[in-house]
Amino acid sequence: MKNPQLNKHGELHHLLTTEGLPVRIMRDILDRAASFLDVAEGREIKKVPLLHGKSVFNVFFENSTRTRTTFEIAAKRLSADVVNLNIGSSSTSKGETLLDTIDNLCAMHADMFVVRHSQSGAAHLIARHVAPEIHVINAGDGRHAHPTQALLDMFTIRHYKQEFHNLRVAIVGDVLHSRVARSQIHALTTLGVPEVRVIAPKTLLPTQVENLGVRVYHDMVEGLRDVDVVLMLRLQNERMQGAALPSGQEYFKNYGLTEEKLAYARPDAIVMHPGPMNRGIEIDSRVADGAQSVILSQVTFGIAVRMAVMSTLAGSKQ
Amino acid sequence: MKNPQLNKHGELHHLLTTEGLPVRIMRDILDRAASFLDVAEGREIKKVPLLHGKSVFNVFFENSTRTRTTFEIAAKRLSADVVNLNIGSSSTSKGETLLDTIDNLCAMHADMFVVRHSQSGAAHLIARHVAPEIHVINAGDGRHAHPTQALLDMFTIRHYKQEFHNLRVAIVGDVLHSRVARSQIHALTTLGVPEVRVIAPKTLLPTQVENLGVRVYHDMVEGLRDVDVVLMLRLQNERMQGAALPSGQEYFKNYGLTEEKLAYARPDAIVMHPGPMNRGIEIDSRVADGAQSVILSQVTFGIAVRMAVMSTLAGSKQ
Amino acid sequence: MKNPQLNKHGELHHLLTTEGLPVRIMRDILDRAASFLDVAEGREIKKVPLLHGKSVFNVFFENSTRTRTTFEIAAKRLSADVVNLNIGSSSTSKGETLLDTIDNLCAMHADMFVVRHSQSGAAHLIARHVAPEIHVINAGDGRHAHPTQALLDMFTIRHYKQEFHNLRVAIVGDVLHSRVARSQIHALTTLGVPEVRVIAPKTLLPTQVENLGVRVYHDMVEGLRDVDVVLMLRLQNERMQGAALPSGQEYFKNYGLTEEKLAYARPDAIVMHPGPMNRGIEIDSRVADGAQSVILSQVTFGIAVRMAVMSTLAGSKQ
Repeated sequence: MKNPQLNKHGELHHLLTTEGLPVRIMRDILDRAASFLDVAEGREIKKVPLLHGKSVFNVFFENSTRTRTTFEIAAKRLSADVVNLNIGSSSTSKGETLLDTIDNLCAMHADMFVVRHSQSGAAHLIARHVAPEIHVINAGDGRHAHPTQALLDMFTIRHYKQEFHNLRVAIVGDVLHSRVARSQIHALTTLGVPEVRVIAPKTLLPTQVENLGVRVYHDMVEGLRDVDVVLMLRLQNERMQGAALPSGQEYFKNYGLTEEKLAYARPDAIVMHPGPMNRGIEIDSRVADGAQSVILSQVTFGIAVRMAVMSTLAGSKQ
Repeated sequence: MKNPQLNKHGELHHLLTTEGLPVRIMRDILDRAASFLDVAEGREIKKVPLLHGKSVFNVFFENSTRTRTTFEIAAKRLSADVVNLNIGSSSTSKGETLLDTIDNLCAMHADMFVVRHSQSGAAHLIARHVAPEIHVINAGDGRHAHPTQALLDMFTIRHYKQEFHNLRVAIVGDVLHSRVARSQIHALTTLGVPEVRVIAPKTLLPTQVENLGVRVYHDMVEGLRDVDVVLMLRLQNERMQGAALPSGQEYFKNYGLTEEKLAYARPDAIVMHPGPMNRGIEIDSRVADGAQSVILSQVTFGIAVRMAVMSTLAGSKQ
Repeated sequence: MKNPQLNKHGELHHLLTTEGLPVRIMRDILDRAASFLDVAEGREIKKVPLLHGKSVFNVFFENSTRTRTTFEIAAKRLSADVVNLNIGSSSTSKGETLLDTIDNLCAMHADMFVVRHSQSGAAHLIARHVAPEIHVINAGDGRHAHPTQALLDMFTIRHYKQEFHNLRVAIVGDVLHSRVARSQIHALTTLGVPEVRVIAPKTLLPTQVENLGVRVYHDMVEGLRDVDVVLMLRLQNERMQGAALPSGQEYFKNYGLTEEKLAYARPDAIVMHPGPMNRGIEIDSRVADGAQSVILSQVTFGIAVRMAVMSTLAGSKQ
């Protein structure tokens, strides 16, 4: 089986990356998320029993209360039992290997793992290793991928722009260290966005980033001109090891999104950010809280998209 | 709307403080708590479905396993989904502001926040900020207020003394740093207790504490004479920054509650403490474990009172 | 009442140790676990409502994500409400005593405590102290006992070997510091295993260990000869205070379980380990992952055994 995310019936069995994810599966997830959004907003009771009796393990080798919370809520609204594991402070510190930890959790009759790890490829490694009835969702691995973030971003874009085939989208900031940017680029190109731009200083771009099908800009005014969607990235201070980065103030002057710079985009352009925001570093508060910002809608849609992913996986045949 | 806790129908929408809380609402909560207590003690199954499908977020910017646990149990017995967030170690450390964190949680379709924060006024700030359908419960903010503690104390007093209008109540200890004392004083005076005393050294009393409607005593024997209820406060070692405090031993000699000192109170006086106790500092073990102590009843009643608060809020109109 | 684990009807009321646990109760738990295992493997929904409405508190004074997780899953599959408390970082650090903490939790109408503590005897102390309707499960206390681990080990042995009366069982490693070894020895002798061996250097054996009914070996080849079951122990690095221990490499040379050493056991001997494993210290990876290893089965059976223990306790009369 070539695609490690699909089973032999072509169904989604794991969600590891948006790279190579078939467009029909992506669209199915977005459609399903839309129906969950109706549930959340239209009903008194926000729960559905789709995962009743299933055990979802949030296995976080890298701490992230925010991301863990979104998966926990999504799983509980699907009526699953949720167990949170901060492995960083646990067995691995007792000398156990990653795969021993995973083997143990599998043996507890887990149904689904939500995995975050600081090493790129960790989710793939785990997906290859687990028993065939267990599903793995990558909640962020190193600089590699963060597919549920990208899918909720796609949901947000479709919600405000209806279609993908007529859009110009700019991704702004620290592309080099960003798993979010990688997953966004693959999702956008798969869904047929004709023009994806990245705007960043050379030092924050991967080498040969053009090969991913994006146009490179080093200047905000040029890069933002006439775009429909601005995807801001978080400046990953904690992931930059000794990088020769300018001060926050200088970065903001050149690449921080202000009302002045945003004026070069289309008047109906939307502004997105995966959070948590560094206000005054990568984004000005007037933009973050302004009329074009859809940042909090992303969070709301994120729950629905994660419910869609989980229920899609749980519904796949073995 | 003047009272930030009430909606336009005069119903309780947030619980932030006992200051200005209408007496009818206070009495309603105590009555409702009594019915939950019957549920807990009379039935095999302690759960009721009043908050089924609702999401309660325990948002603790200041760590407190004990208080968090009481709210978690109360919410689960109401059949809510509960998500625990220790924010101290999370997003705020990534540079996100308090209100960004709250905005994000609101966007996840939260129904209720239980908030603890080291800054006075944090719960009010959050209550002003959240969407109108979301309820906020203050689980302790700085030195300001801890209303559910005060309400469970009122429940305990009513349980053992039936009425408030004929009581003498003494609050003993570190009033200066105590949010519990402030919330108790407002609750006691609102419910019609004719005589509320505070007993403490001058250095542990707020300036002009008399303006809250209490009598001030610096001597235990005088202050405890003929009281019906003794409310001990915890010596908040961790909240005193460089305060010129005597040693624990010396404090105990003067203000520690012993059987000898308690003998000056009425023979049927009850002794209460919000916990956790510093035995041998503010209270002697023979009193803490003695016949007049109702300290563990406070804990039991605390669950019922928190269930009453949560279900009252959830039942208010928008 | 002599046996602190039984009520006056002879039913199991607490599970504190396998020492003195009647054989009929041990066998009942194993039988009941077998039925839960069928539930887990045969059905789409792994939950049963036996503890619906009950509150199970995981009270861990010593951190152990893995053990806490197994109890959390077991309780949730029985439909209980579960509250996790890491007490190490909580009230006790505020100066509260162990028994005050327990009193408080009892007052919250707890139904069951799962307790882990670094002090031997802590679970017994708590069981003597709690209200008569509350059940206590010892999840490991100091060097003393870890009864659910021993019971899941017995379940595993019975699963693969059917009977106990014809077995030779060897326990290998750091018996001195191991609560697991103590609980295993009591369980094995109670269930009628005619020959229980311990294999360890003298420095890692308790004095007069023979009095427990075991044969002592200091040499792996002799000790493993013709055994049916090999119970490896974890080298408890974190529990050895200044012990004169050889290096990991030297320990492995003498007492690490390799294929070569295992060849002296019976060809159908099974290899067990309570986890987490130190590969290359007490066990070689080829053995850990080999055909005779049943280590992951132990984990699976562990959930069923814990469900059996919890439901047995909940079903006892007061």
